[in-house]
Amino acid sequence: MRARVHVTLKSGVLDPQGKAIQHALEALGFGGVDAVRQGKVIEIDLAETDAGKARVVVEDMCRQLLANTVIENYAVEIAD
Amino acid sequence: MRARVHVTLKSGVLDPQGKAIQHALEALGFGGVDAVRQGKVIEIDLAETDAGKARVVVEDMCRQLLANTVIENYAVEIAD
Repeated sequence: MRARVHVTLKSGVLDPQGKAIQHALEALGFGGVDAVRQGKVIEIDLAETDAGKARVVVEDMCRQLLANTVIENYAVEIAD
Repeated sequence: MRARVHVTLKSGVLDPQGKAIQHALEALGFGGVDAVRQGKVIEIDLAETDAGKARVVVEDMCRQLLANTVIENYAVEIAD
């Protein structure tokens, strides 16, 4: 079973990587870019075969390791 | 219009960040983790209102800046 976790900065937290990308896109001539935010995506292959149990385990992983919940949000998707 | 770009390492390319996460999860006592891969997610707010045109522009951004197509794959999602 595969889980995909998105870790993104909370709104209001400064995102210098996103700003750098936005400026680089403008320098390359791409207009109409209002905002850019960068986050992480983590794909985890699990031995667990029950989707509900897998989600509980992965949310625990997010809180303990994958996300800094002071400044980051996380979202878990369980794929087959 | 918002675009979300996933940039992930091609299969076969070594992913030391993913390996580090896998080992850290094991050290925390999470069993049954077969593999971990880490990638980037980039959210772009565009002034463009046509989904088709937005996709073309964002794919161009991926090729020019967001992804290193030698070692990385990209996937573009256009949300409303």
